[in-house]
Amino acid sequence: MARFQYVRFKVSWTAILTLAHFTYLLVGATIFQILEREAESNNRNHFQLEKLHFLANYTCLDGPALEKFVQVILDVWEKGVNPSGNSTNPSNWDFSSSFFFAGTVVTTIGYGNLSPSTVSGQVFCVFYALCGIPLNLAFLKQLGKCLTIHLGRLERGMVSVVPHKQTVEALAVSLFFITGSLLFLVIPPLLFSYVEGWSFGEGFYFTFITLSTIGFGDYVVGTDPGKEYISLYRSLAGIWIIFALAWLALILNMGARTMEYAIGLTHPGFKKQKEEEDVSSSTIEDTSNM
Amino acid sequence: MARFQYVRFKVSWTAILTLAHFTYLLVGATIFQILEREAESNNRNHFQLEKLHFLANYTCLDGPALEKFVQVILDVWEKGVNPSGNSTNPSNWDFSSSFFFAGTVVTTIGYGNLSPSTVSGQVFCVFYALCGIPLNLAFLKQLGKCLTIHLGRLERGMVSVVPHKQTVEALAVSLFFITGSLLFLVIPPLLFSYVEGWSFGEGFYFTFITLSTIGFGDYVVGTDPGKEYISLYRSLAGIWIIFALAWLALILNMGARTMEYAIGLTHPGFKKQKEEEDVSSSTIEDTSNM
Ligand SMILES: [K+]
Ligand SMILES: [K+]
Repeated sequence: MARFQYVRFKVSWTAILTLAHFTYLLVGATIFQILEREAESNNRNHFQLEKLHFLANYTCLDGPALEKFVQVILDVWEKGVNPSGNSTNPSNWDFSSSFFFAGTVVTTIGYGNLSPSTVSGQVFCVFYALCGIPLNLAFLKQLGKCLTIHLGRLERGMVSVVPHKQTVEALAVSLFFITGSLLFLVIPPLLFSYVEGWSFGEGFYFTFITLSTIGFGDYVVGTDPGKEYISLYRSLAGIWIIFALAWLALILNMGARTMEYAIGLTHPGFKKQKEEEDVSSSTIEDTSNM
Repeated sequence: MARFQYVRFKVSWTAILTLAHFTYLLVGATIFQILEREAESNNRNHFQLEKLHFLANYTCLDGPALEKFVQVILDVWEKGVNPSGNSTNPSNWDFSSSFFFAGTVVTTIGYGNLSPSTVSGQVFCVFYALCGIPLNLAFLKQLGKCLTIHLGRLERGMVSVVPHKQTVEALAVSLFFITGSLLFLVIPPLLFSYVEGWSFGEGFYFTFITLSTIGFGDYVVGTDPGKEYISLYRSLAGIWIIFALAWLALILNMGARTMEYAIGLTHPGFKKQKEEEDVSSSTIEDTSNM
Protein backbone atom coordinates (compact mmCIF):
# COMPACT_ATOMS: atom_id res chain seq x y z
CA MET A 1 0.00 0.00 0.00
CA ALA A 2 2.84 2.33 0.94
CA ARG A 3 4.62 1.40 -2.26
CA PHE A 4 1.50 2.07 -4.30
CA GLN A 5 1.17 5.51 -2.74
CA TYR A 6 4.83 6.22 -3.37
CA VAL A 7 4.56 5.35 -7.08
CA ARG A 8 1.40 7.41 -7.40
CA PHE A 9 3.17 10.36 -5.80
CA LYS A 10 6.09 10.08 -8.21
CA VAL A 11 3.94 9.84 -11.31
CA SER A 12 1.76 12.72 -10.25
CA TRP A 13 4.77 14.90 -9.42
CA THR A 14 6.07 14.59 -13.02
CA ALA A 15 2.57 15.11 -14.37
CA ILE A 16 1.96 18.12 -12.14
CA LEU A 17 5.22 19.76 -13.17
CA THR A 18 4.59 19.12 -16.88
CA LEU A 19 1.06 20.47 -16.60
CA ALA A 20 2.20 23.47 -14.55
CA HIS A 21 4.99 24.26 -17.00
CA PHE A 22 2.80 24.15 -20.08
CA THR A 23 -0.02 26.05 -18.40
CA TYR A 24 2.50 28.67 -17.35
CA LEU A 25 3.73 29.00 -20.94
CA LEU A 26 0.19 29.19 -22.34
CA VAL A 27 -0.87 31.83 -19.80
CA GLY A 28 2.32 33.80 -20.46
CA ALA A 29 1.81 33.64 -24.21
CA THR A 30 -1.76 34.96 -23.85
CA ILE A 31 -0.80 37.83 -21.57
CA PHE A 32 2.23 38.90 -23.63
CA GLN A 33 0.03 38.89 -26.70
CA ILE A 34 -2.63 41.04 -25.03
CA LEU A 35 -0.04 43.50 -23.72
CA GLU A 36 2.07 43.86 -26.85
CA ARG A 37 -0.24 43.44 -29.79
CA GLU A 38 -1.84 46.87 -29.68
CA ALA A 39 1.46 48.72 -29.31
CA GLU A 40 2.85 46.75 -32.24
CA SER A 41 -0.12 47.58 -34.40
CA ASN A 42 0.17 51.30 -33.49
CA ASN A 43 3.89 51.34 -34.31
CA ARG A 44 3.22 49.56 -37.56
CA ASN A 45 0.50 51.98 -38.68
CA HIS A 46 2.62 54.94 -37.67
CA PHE A 47 5.50 53.65 -39.77
CA GLN A 48 3.27 53.07 -42.81
CA LEU A 49 2.13 56.69 -42.55
CA GLU A 50 5.75 57.86 -42.36
CA LYS A 51 6.53 55.83 -45.45
CA LEU A 52 3.59 57.31 -47.40
CA HIS A 53 4.61 60.76 -46.23
CA PHE A 54 8.14 60.18 -47.48
CA LEU A 55 6.89 58.96 -50.86
CA ALA A 56 4.59 61.98 -51.19
CA ASN A 57 7.40 64.43 -50.37
CA TYR A 58 9.92 62.94 -52.78
CA THR A 59 7.93 62.30 -55.91
CA CYS A 60 10.80 60.84 -57.93
CA LEU A 61 10.65 57.79 -55.63
CA ASP A 62 8.27 54.90 -56.24
CA GLY A 63 7.11 52.23 -53.77
CA PRO A 64 9.16 49.27 -55.05
CA ALA A 65 12.41 51.30 -55.06
CA LEU A 66 11.82 52.32 -51.45
CA GLU A 67 11.03 48.71 -50.46
CA LYS A 68 14.27 47.59 -52.03
CA PHE A 69 16.18 50.23 -50.10
CA VAL A 70 14.49 49.21 -46.82
CA GLN A 71 15.62 45.64 -47.50
CA VAL A 72 19.21 46.81 -48.05
CA ILE A 73 19.15 48.67 -44.72
CA LEU A 74 17.79 45.62 -42.89
CA ASP A 75 20.39 43.32 -44.44
CA VAL A 76 23.27 45.53 -43.39
CA TRP A 77 21.74 45.95 -39.91
CA GLU A 78 21.52 42.19 -39.48
CA LYS A 79 25.19 41.94 -40.39
CA GLY A 80 25.90 44.20 -37.42
CA VAL A 81 26.57 47.50 -39.23
CA ASN A 82 24.76 50.62 -38.10
CA PRO A 83 23.24 52.08 -41.29
CA SER A 84 22.83 55.63 -39.97
CA GLY A 85 25.68 58.11 -40.27
CA ASN A 86 28.64 57.76 -42.59
CA SER A 87 31.61 55.40 -42.74
CA THR A 88 33.54 57.34 -40.07
CA ASN A 89 31.28 55.78 -37.39
CA PRO A 90 33.36 53.97 -34.75
CA SER A 91 33.62 50.24 -35.48
CA ASN A 92 31.34 47.87 -33.57
CA TRP A 93 34.33 45.58 -33.14
CA ASP A 94 36.74 47.93 -31.37
CA PHE A 95 38.60 46.30 -28.50
CA SER A 96 36.31 47.29 -25.64
CA SER A 97 33.20 46.14 -27.54
CA SER A 98 34.91 42.90 -28.47
CA PHE A 99 35.86 42.37 -24.81
CA PHE A 100 32.28 43.07 -23.73
CA PHE A 101 31.09 40.62 -26.40
CA ALA A 102 33.42 37.89 -25.08
CA GLY A 103 31.96 38.50 -21.62
CA THR A 104 28.38 38.13 -22.85
CA VAL A 105 29.35 34.81 -24.50
CA VAL A 106 30.92 33.15 -21.43
CA THR A 107 28.12 34.33 -19.10
CA THR A 108 25.54 33.08 -21.70
CA ILE A 109 23.84 36.49 -21.61
CA GLY A 110 24.33 36.87 -25.37
CA TYR A 111 22.69 40.25 -26.03
CA GLY A 112 23.15 39.72 -29.74
CA ASN A 113 23.60 43.42 -30.59
CA LEU A 114 26.96 42.07 -31.77
CA SER A 115 27.31 38.53 -33.11
CA PRO A 116 29.87 36.89 -35.39
CA SER A 117 28.86 37.18 -39.04
CA THR A 118 31.78 35.36 -40.68
CA VAL A 119 32.00 31.56 -40.77
CA SER A 120 35.38 31.59 -39.01
CA GLY A 121 33.96 33.90 -36.34
CA GLN A 122 31.02 31.55 -35.77
CA VAL A 123 33.24 28.46 -35.54
CA PHE A 124 35.57 30.21 -33.10
CA CYS A 125 32.56 31.41 -31.07
CA VAL A 126 31.33 27.82 -30.62
CA PHE A 127 34.68 26.56 -29.30
CA TYR A 128 35.20 29.74 -27.28
CA ALA A 129 31.87 29.22 -25.50
CA LEU A 130 32.52 25.48 -25.01
CA CYS A 131 35.59 26.23 -22.85
CA GLY A 132 34.56 29.67 -21.60
CA ILE A 133 31.20 28.80 -20.01
CA PRO A 134 32.65 26.15 -17.62
CA LEU A 135 35.62 28.45 -16.85
CA ASN A 136 33.23 31.29 -16.02
CA LEU A 137 31.14 29.00 -13.78
CA ALA A 138 34.28 27.89 -11.90
CA PHE A 139 35.32 31.52 -11.52
CA LEU A 140 31.90 32.59 -10.21
CA LYS A 141 31.93 29.68 -7.74
CA GLN A 142 35.36 30.67 -6.43
CA LEU A 143 34.26 34.31 -6.19
CA GLY A 144 31.22 33.20 -4.21
CA LYS A 145 33.47 31.26 -1.82
CA CYS A 146 35.63 34.34 -1.27
CA LEU A 147 32.54 36.43 -0.52
CA THR A 148 31.39 33.77 2.00
CA ILE A 149 34.79 33.81 3.72
CA HIS A 150 34.61 37.59 4.06
CA LEU A 151 31.12 37.25 5.48
CA GLY A 152 32.52 34.75 8.01
CA ARG A 153 35.27 37.19 9.01
CA LEU A 154 32.77 39.99 9.40
CA GLU A 155 30.72 37.76 11.69
CA ARG A 156 33.68 36.78 13.83
CA GLY A 157 34.62 40.45 14.11
CA MET A 158 31.11 41.26 15.24
CA VAL A 159 31.03 38.35 17.72
CA SER A 160 33.98 39.92 19.51
CA VAL A 161 31.91 43.11 19.95
CA VAL A 162 28.39 41.76 20.53
CA PRO A 163 28.26 38.53 22.55
CA HIS A 164 24.83 37.20 21.43
CA LYS A 165 25.51 34.81 18.58
CA GLN A 166 22.15 34.46 16.82
CA THR A 167 21.64 38.21 16.70
CA VAL A 168 25.09 38.56 15.15
CA GLU A 169 24.29 35.90 12.56
CA ALA A 170 21.02 37.58 11.56
CA LEU A 171 22.74 40.98 11.47
CA ALA A 172 25.64 39.75 9.30
CA VAL A 173 23.36 38.05 6.78
CA SER A 174 21.10 41.13 6.61
CA LEU A 175 24.10 43.40 6.17
CA PHE A 176 25.45 41.15 3.40
CA PHE A 177 22.07 41.11 1.70
CA ILE A 178 21.44 44.87 2.01
CA THR A 179 24.96 45.94 1.00
CA GLY A 180 24.87 43.56 -1.97
CA SER A 181 21.44 44.73 -3.09
CA LEU A 182 22.54 48.34 -2.98
CA LEU A 183 25.87 47.71 -4.70
CA PHE A 184 24.59 45.34 -7.38
CA LEU A 185 20.86 45.90 -7.84
CA VAL A 186 20.07 49.52 -6.96
CA ILE A 187 23.04 51.80 -7.67
CA PRO A 188 24.03 50.36 -11.10
CA PRO A 189 20.55 50.74 -12.69
CA LEU A 190 20.39 54.32 -11.40
CA LEU A 191 23.80 55.01 -12.90
CA PHE A 192 22.93 53.33 -16.22
CA SER A 193 19.64 55.22 -16.48
CA TYR A 194 21.49 58.48 -15.93
CA VAL A 195 24.22 57.80 -18.49
CA GLU A 196 22.00 56.23 -21.18
CA GLY A 197 19.04 58.57 -20.73
CA TRP A 198 16.66 55.72 -19.82
CA SER A 199 13.84 55.96 -17.30
CA PHE A 200 14.52 54.27 -13.95
CA GLY A 201 12.09 51.53 -14.92
CA GLU A 202 14.05 50.82 -18.10
CA GLY A 203 17.28 50.74 -16.06
CA PHE A 204 15.84 48.14 -13.67
CA TYR A 205 14.42 46.16 -16.59
CA PHE A 206 17.87 46.11 -18.22
CA THR A 207 19.42 45.00 -14.90
CA PHE A 208 16.95 42.17 -14.48
CA ILE A 209 17.21 40.94 -18.08
CA THR A 210 21.02 41.01 -17.79
CA LEU A 211 21.44 39.30 -14.40
CA SER A 212 18.86 36.62 -15.18
CA THR A 213 21.17 35.96 -18.22
CA ILE A 214 18.17 36.28 -20.55
CA GLY A 215 19.83 39.15 -22.42
CA PHE A 216 17.28 40.19 -25.04
CA GLY A 217 19.59 42.92 -26.27
CA ASP A 218 16.80 45.51 -26.54
CA TYR A 219 18.64 47.62 -23.95
CA VAL A 220 22.44 47.34 -23.83
CA VAL A 221 24.75 49.78 -22.03
CA GLY A 222 27.42 51.59 -24.01
CA THR A 223 26.00 51.00 -27.48
CA ASP A 224 24.26 54.27 -28.36
CA PRO A 225 26.21 55.55 -31.41
CA GLY A 226 25.07 59.12 -30.62
CA LYS A 227 26.80 59.13 -27.21
CA GLU A 228 30.42 59.58 -26.13
CA TYR A 229 31.20 57.15 -23.31
CA ILE A 230 34.21 57.39 -21.03
CA SER A 231 36.55 54.51 -21.83
CA LEU A 232 36.08 52.81 -18.44
CA TYR A 233 32.29 52.68 -18.70
CA ARG A 234 31.92 49.41 -20.60
CA SER A 235 34.63 47.70 -18.53
CA LEU A 236 32.89 48.78 -15.32
CA ALA A 237 29.64 47.34 -16.66
CA GLY A 238 31.46 44.06 -17.35
CA ILE A 239 32.89 43.93 -13.82
CA TRP A 240 29.45 44.72 -12.40
CA ILE A 241 27.97 41.76 -14.32
CA ILE A 242 30.60 39.30 -13.00
CA PHE A 243 30.35 40.33 -9.34
CA ALA A 244 26.57 40.69 -9.37
CA LEU A 245 26.19 37.19 -10.87
CA ALA A 246 28.48 35.72 -8.17
CA TRP A 247 26.56 37.53 -5.42
CA LEU A 248 23.21 36.46 -6.87
CA ALA A 249 24.30 32.80 -7.11
CA LEU A 250 25.29 32.95 -3.45
CA ILE A 251 22.00 34.55 -2.36
CA LEU A 252 19.95 32.04 -4.39
CA ASN A 253 21.99 29.20 -2.87
CA MET A 254 21.35 30.52 0.66
CA GLY A 255 17.66 30.96 -0.14
CA ALA A 256 17.32 27.42 -1.48
CA ARG A 257 19.02 25.99 1.63
CA THR A 258 16.82 28.01 3.98
CA MET A 259 13.74 26.87 2.08
CA GLU A 260 14.75 23.19 2.18
CA TYR A 261 15.42 23.57 5.91
CA ALA A 262 12.01 25.20 6.44
CA ILE A 263 10.24 22.50 4.41
CA GLY A 264 12.06 19.84 6.45
CA LEU A 265 10.81 21.45 9.68
CA THR A 266 7.17 21.91 8.65
CA HIS A 267 6.69 18.82 6.42
CA PRO A 268 8.93 16.04 7.73
CA GLY A 269 7.07 13.56 5.51
CA PHE A 270 7.89 15.48 2.34
CA LYS A 271 11.59 15.38 3.02
CA LYS A 272 11.48 11.67 3.78
CA GLN A 273 9.66 10.97 0.54
CA LYS A 274 12.15 13.09 -1.36
CA GLU A 275 15.03 11.19 0.19
CA GLU A 276 13.43 7.86 -0.69
CA GLU A 277 13.08 9.04 -4.25
CA ASP A 278 16.69 10.18 -4.34
CA VAL A 279 17.80 6.82 -2.97
CA SER A 280 15.84 4.93 -5.60
CA SER A 281 17.25 7.01 -8.43
CA SER A 282 20.76 6.90 -7.03
CA THR A 283 20.48 3.12 -6.86
CA ILE A 284 19.93 3.14 -10.59
CA GLU A 285 22.85 5.51 -11.06
CA ASP A 286 25.04 3.34 -8.84
CA THR A 287 24.19 0.41 -11.05
CA SER A 288 25.32 2.41 -14.04
CA ASN A 289 28.49 3.57 -12.28
CA MET A 290 29.61 0.12 -11.28
CA MET B 1 54.47 24.67 7.42
CA ALA B 2 51.58 22.57 6.15
CA ARG B 3 49.22 25.36 7.03
CA PHE B 4 51.36 27.88 5.15
CA GLN B 5 51.34 25.68 2.06
CA TYR B 6 47.59 25.22 2.34
CA VAL B 7 46.97 28.97 2.55
CA ARG B 8 49.31 29.56 -0.38
CA PHE B 9 47.42 26.97 -2.42
CA LYS B 10 44.08 28.58 -1.65
CA VAL B 11 45.23 32.08 -2.53
CA SER B 12 46.85 30.89 -5.72
CA TRP B 13 43.76 28.94 -6.80
CA THR B 14 41.60 32.12 -6.68
CA ALA B 15 44.40 34.10 -8.33
CA ILE B 16 44.89 31.48 -11.05
CA LEU B 17 41.18 31.38 -11.84
CA THR B 18 40.92 35.19 -11.95
CA LEU B 19 43.98 35.43 -14.16
CA ALA B 20 42.80 32.59 -16.41
CA HIS B 21 39.35 34.14 -16.76
CA PHE B 22 40.60 37.60 -17.69
CA THR B 23 43.26 36.25 -20.01
CA TYR B 24 40.60 34.14 -21.68
CA LEU B 25 38.39 37.22 -22.17
CA LEU B 26 41.30 39.30 -23.52
CA VAL B 27 42.38 36.58 -25.94
CA GLY B 28 38.77 36.10 -27.06
CA ALA B 29 38.31 39.82 -27.57
CA THR B 30 41.44 40.01 -29.72
CA ILE B 31 40.51 37.04 -31.89
CA PHE B 32 36.90 38.11 -32.38
CA GLN B 33 38.13 41.53 -33.40
CA ILE B 34 40.60 40.10 -35.92
CA LEU B 35 37.98 37.76 -37.39
CA GLU B 36 35.08 40.21 -37.60
CA ARG B 37 36.58 43.63 -38.23
CA GLU B 38 37.35 43.17 -41.93
CA ALA B 39 33.93 41.72 -42.74
CA GLU B 40 32.29 44.60 -40.90
CA SER B 41 34.33 47.17 -42.80
CA ASN B 42 33.46 45.49 -46.11
CA ASN B 43 29.76 45.44 -45.29
CA ARG B 44 29.92 49.05 -44.22
CA ASN B 45 31.64 50.22 -47.41
CA HIS B 46 29.27 48.20 -49.53
CA PHE B 47 26.31 49.82 -47.81
CA GLN B 48 27.73 53.34 -48.28
CA LEU B 49 28.04 52.62 -52.00
CA GLU B 50 24.44 51.42 -52.15
CA LYS B 51 23.34 54.62 -50.40
CA LEU B 52 25.27 56.83 -52.86
CA HIS B 53 23.86 54.79 -55.75
CA PHE B 54 20.34 55.32 -54.41
CA LEU B 55 20.90 59.07 -54.04
CA ALA B 56 22.31 59.30 -57.58
CA ASN B 57 19.34 57.40 -59.06
CA TYR B 58 16.67 59.44 -57.28
CA THR B 59 17.88 63.01 -57.63
CA CYS B 60 14.96 64.60 -55.75
CA LEU B 61 16.38 63.02 -52.56
CA ASP B 62 19.09 64.69 -50.51
CA GLY B 63 21.42 63.12 -47.95
CA PRO B 64 19.80 64.48 -44.73
CA ALA B 65 16.31 63.37 -45.82
CA LEU B 66 17.59 59.86 -46.46
CA GLU B 67 19.40 59.80 -43.09
CA LYS B 68 16.18 60.80 -41.38
CA PHE B 69 14.32 58.01 -43.13
CA VAL B 70 16.99 55.47 -42.15
CA GLN B 71 16.55 56.57 -38.53
CA VAL B 72 12.77 56.06 -38.78
CA ILE B 73 13.30 52.54 -40.12
CA LEU B 74 15.73 51.69 -37.31
CA ASP B 75 13.39 53.05 -34.64
CA VAL B 76 10.49 50.97 -35.86
CA TRP B 77 12.75 47.91 -36.18
CA GLU B 78 13.90 48.29 -32.57
CA LYS B 79 10.26 48.38 -31.50
CA GLY B 80 9.88 44.94 -33.05
CA VAL B 81 8.04 45.86 -36.27
CA ASN B 82 9.34 44.56 -39.59
CA PRO B 83 9.60 47.66 -41.83
CA SER B 84 9.55 45.79 -45.14
CA GLY B 85 6.24 44.93 -46.78
CA ASN B 86 2.94 46.55 -45.97
CA SER B 87 0.62 46.50 -42.97
CA THR B 88 -0.92 43.15 -43.95
CA ASN B 89 2.26 41.40 -42.67
CA PRO B 90 1.39 38.77 -40.04
CA SER B 91 1.78 40.14 -36.50
CA ASN B 92 4.96 39.30 -34.58
CA TRP B 93 2.78 38.68 -31.53
CA ASP B 94 0.47 35.99 -32.91
CA PHE B 95 -0.15 33.18 -30.44
CA SER B 96 2.54 30.74 -31.61
CA SER B 97 5.21 33.48 -31.60
CA SER B 98 4.07 34.64 -28.18
CA PHE B 99 4.27 31.05 -26.90
CA PHE B 100 7.75 30.65 -28.37
CA PHE B 101 8.71 33.97 -26.74
CA ALA B 102 7.48 32.76 -23.31
CA GLY B 103 9.62 29.64 -23.82
CA THR B 104 12.73 31.70 -24.58
CA VAL B 105 12.13 33.73 -21.39
CA VAL B 106 11.85 30.79 -18.95
CA THR B 107 14.82 28.94 -20.49
CA THR B 108 16.84 32.25 -20.36
CA ILE B 109 17.69 31.86 -24.06
CA GLY B 110 16.15 35.27 -24.82
CA TYR B 111 16.77 35.56 -28.56
CA GLY B 112 15.45 39.11 -28.46
CA ASN B 113 14.00 39.07 -31.98
CA LEU B 114 10.84 39.71 -29.97
CA SER B 115 10.93 41.63 -26.70
CA PRO B 116 8.29 43.57 -24.75
CA SER B 117 8.20 47.23 -25.81
CA THR B 118 5.44 48.50 -23.53
CA VAL B 119 6.04 49.32 -19.86
CA SER B 120 3.34 46.88 -18.74
CA GLY B 121 4.86 44.18 -20.94
CA GLN B 122 8.30 44.75 -19.40
CA VAL B 123 6.96 44.68 -15.82
CA PHE B 124 5.06 41.48 -16.55
CA CYS B 125 8.13 39.97 -18.21
CA VAL B 126 10.21 40.54 -15.04
CA PHE B 127 7.70 38.79 -12.77
CA TYR B 128 7.04 36.11 -15.37
CA ALA B 129 10.76 35.26 -15.51
CA LEU B 130 11.11 35.40 -11.71
CA CYS B 131 8.65 32.51 -11.30
CA GLY B 132 9.18 30.86 -14.68
CA ILE B 133 12.93 30.26 -14.55
CA PRO B 134 12.81 28.20 -11.29
CA LEU B 135 9.74 26.34 -12.57
CA ASN B 136 11.55 25.50 -15.79
CA LEU B 137 14.62 24.31 -13.87
CA ALA B 138 12.45 22.05 -11.69
CA PHE B 139 10.77 20.71 -14.82
CA LEU B 140 14.09 20.01 -16.58
CA LYS B 141 15.37 18.25 -13.43
CA GLN B 142 12.29 16.02 -13.27
CA LEU B 143 12.58 15.28 -17.00
CA GLY B 144 16.23 14.34 -16.48
CA LYS B 145 15.20 11.95 -13.67
CA CYS B 146 12.64 10.28 -15.95
CA LEU B 147 15.29 9.85 -18.65
CA THR B 148 17.66 8.29 -16.06
CA ILE B 149 14.97 5.87 -14.92
CA HIS B 150 14.37 4.79 -18.51
CA LEU B 151 18.11 4.31 -18.94
CA GLY B 152 18.10 2.14 -15.80
CA ARG B 153 15.23 0.04 -17.18
CA LEU B 154 17.04 -0.37 -20.48
CA GLU B 155 20.11 -1.59 -18.58
CA ARG B 156 18.15 -4.07 -16.51
CA GLY B 157 16.49 -5.34 -19.68
CA MET B 158 19.90 -5.82 -21.28
CA VAL B 159 21.33 -7.50 -18.17
CA SER B 160 18.69 -10.21 -18.56
CA VAL B 161 19.99 -10.88 -22.10
CA VAL B 162 23.77 -10.33 -21.72
CA PRO B 163 25.16 -11.52 -18.40
CA HIS B 164 28.37 -9.38 -18.29
CA LYS B 165 27.51 -6.30 -16.23
CA GLN B 166 30.25 -3.82 -17.16
CA THR B 167 29.79 -4.40 -20.88
CA VAL B 168 26.08 -3.80 -20.46
CA GLU B 169 26.73 -0.59 -18.54
CA ALA B 170 29.10 0.76 -21.20
CA LEU B 171 26.68 -0.26 -23.95
CA ALA B 172 23.68 1.40 -22.29
CA VAL B 173 25.50 4.67 -21.69
CA SER B 174 26.84 4.70 -25.27
CA LEU B 175 23.39 3.95 -26.64
CA PHE B 176 21.90 6.75 -24.53
CA PHE B 177 24.61 9.14 -25.69
CA ILE B 178 24.41 8.22 -29.38
CA THR B 179 20.61 8.15 -29.59
CA GLY B 180 20.42 11.49 -27.76
CA SER B 181 23.07 13.09 -29.97
CA LEU B 182 21.24 11.99 -33.09
CA LEU B 183 17.81 13.01 -31.82
CA PHE B 184 18.82 16.34 -30.30
CA LEU B 185 22.07 17.51 -31.91
CA VAL B 186 22.23 16.10 -35.45
CA ILE B 187 18.75 15.64 -36.91
CA PRO B 188 17.24 18.99 -35.75
CA PRO B 189 19.97 21.20 -37.28
CA LEU B 190 19.68 19.29 -40.56
CA LEU B 191 15.92 19.83 -40.51
CA PHE B 192 16.23 23.52 -39.60
CA SER B 193 18.83 24.12 -42.33
CA TYR B 194 16.51 22.50 -44.86
CA VAL B 195 13.42 24.50 -43.84
CA GLU B 196 15.14 27.86 -43.31
CA GLY B 197 17.52 27.63 -46.27
CA TRP B 198 20.62 27.86 -44.06
CA SER B 199 23.89 26.06 -44.69
CA PHE B 200 24.52 23.04 -42.43
CA GLY B 201 27.14 25.07 -40.60
CA GLU B 202 24.61 27.79 -39.84
CA GLY B 203 22.15 25.15 -38.62
CA PHE B 204 24.73 23.73 -36.19
CA TYR B 205 25.72 27.22 -35.08
CA PHE B 206 22.06 28.02 -34.35
CA THR B 207 21.73 24.73 -32.41
CA PHE B 208 24.79 25.45 -30.31
CA ILE B 209 23.87 29.08 -29.57
CA THR B 210 20.36 27.93 -28.58
CA LEU B 211 21.25 24.95 -26.37
CA SER B 212 24.05 26.82 -24.61
CA THR B 213 21.22 29.33 -23.79
CA ILE B 214 23.35 32.17 -25.21
CA GLY B 215 20.66 32.97 -27.79
CA PHE B 216 22.11 35.86 -29.82
CA GLY B 217 19.01 35.94 -31.98
CA ASP B 218 20.99 36.31 -35.23
CA TYR B 219 19.48 33.00 -36.37
CA VAL B 220 16.00 32.10 -35.10
CA VAL B 221 13.78 29.38 -36.55
CA GLY B 222 10.34 30.27 -37.83
CA THR B 223 10.88 34.03 -38.14
CA ASP B 224 11.54 34.60 -41.85
CA PRO B 225 8.62 36.81 -42.99
CA GLY B 226 9.10 35.60 -46.56
CA LYS B 227 8.39 31.95 -45.64
CA GLU B 228 5.18 30.04 -44.97
CA TYR B 229 5.72 27.67 -42.05
CA ILE B 230 3.46 24.78 -41.14
CA SER B 231 1.70 25.59 -37.89
CA LEU B 232 3.42 22.79 -35.92
CA TYR B 233 6.95 23.92 -36.84
CA ARG B 234 7.52 26.47 -34.06
CA SER B 235 5.90 24.24 -31.43
CA LEU B 236 8.15 21.34 -32.48
CA ALA B 237 11.17 23.64 -32.17
CA GLY B 238 10.02 24.55 -28.65
CA ILE B 239 9.64 20.89 -27.64
CA TRP B 240 13.07 20.14 -29.12
CA ILE B 241 14.60 22.92 -26.96
CA ILE B 242 13.05 21.56 -23.73
CA PHE B 243 14.03 17.93 -24.25
CA ALA B 244 17.48 18.73 -25.60
CA LEU B 245 18.22 20.95 -22.59
CA ALA B 246 17.13 18.17 -20.18
CA TRP B 247 19.26 15.62 -22.04
CA LEU B 248 22.27 17.98 -22.13
CA ALA B 249 22.01 18.72 -18.39
CA LEU B 250 22.05 14.98 -17.73
CA ILE B 251 25.05 14.37 -19.99
CA LEU B 252 27.00 17.27 -18.46
CA ASN B 253 26.16 15.96 -14.98
CA MET B 254 27.43 12.47 -15.93
CA GLY B 255 30.56 13.99 -17.48
CA ALA B 256 31.33 16.10 -14.41
CA ARG B 257 30.96 13.06 -12.11
CA THR B 258 33.18 10.91 -14.32
CA MET B 259 35.81 13.67 -14.39
CA GLU B 260 35.74 14.11 -10.60
CA TYR B 261 36.07 10.33 -10.23
CA ALA B 262 39.01 10.28 -12.67
CA ILE B 263 40.76 13.20 -10.89
CA GLY B 264 40.23 11.39 -7.58
CA LEU B 265 41.90 8.27 -9.01
CA THR B 266 44.91 9.97 -10.62
CA HIS B 267 45.52 12.84 -8.14
CA PRO B 268 44.45 11.63 -4.68
CA GLY B 269 46.22 14.65 -3.13
CA PHE B 270 44.16 17.11 -5.17
CA LYS B 271 40.91 15.66 -3.92
CA LYS B 272 42.13 15.69 -0.32
CA GLN B 273 43.14 19.32 -0.61
CA LYS B 274 39.79 20.17 -2.16
CA GLU B 275 38.02 18.43 0.68
CA GLU B 276 40.07 20.27 3.26
CA GLU B 277 39.13 23.53 1.57
CA ASP B 278 35.48 22.55 1.56
CA VAL B 279 35.68 21.66 5.24
CA SER B 280 37.25 24.99 6.12
CA SER B 281 34.66 26.96 4.18
CA SER B 282 31.82 24.85 5.53
CA THR B 283 33.10 25.50 9.05
CA ILE B 284 32.56 29.17 8.37
CA GLU B 285 29.13 28.44 6.92
CA ASP B 286 28.29 26.32 9.96
CA THR B 287 29.21 29.24 12.16
CA SER B 288 26.82 31.39 10.19
CA ASN B 289 24.10 28.74 10.26
CA MET B 290 24.21 28.22 13.99
K1 LIG C 1 20.74 34.31 -23.00
K1 LIG D 1 20.18 36.29 -25.37
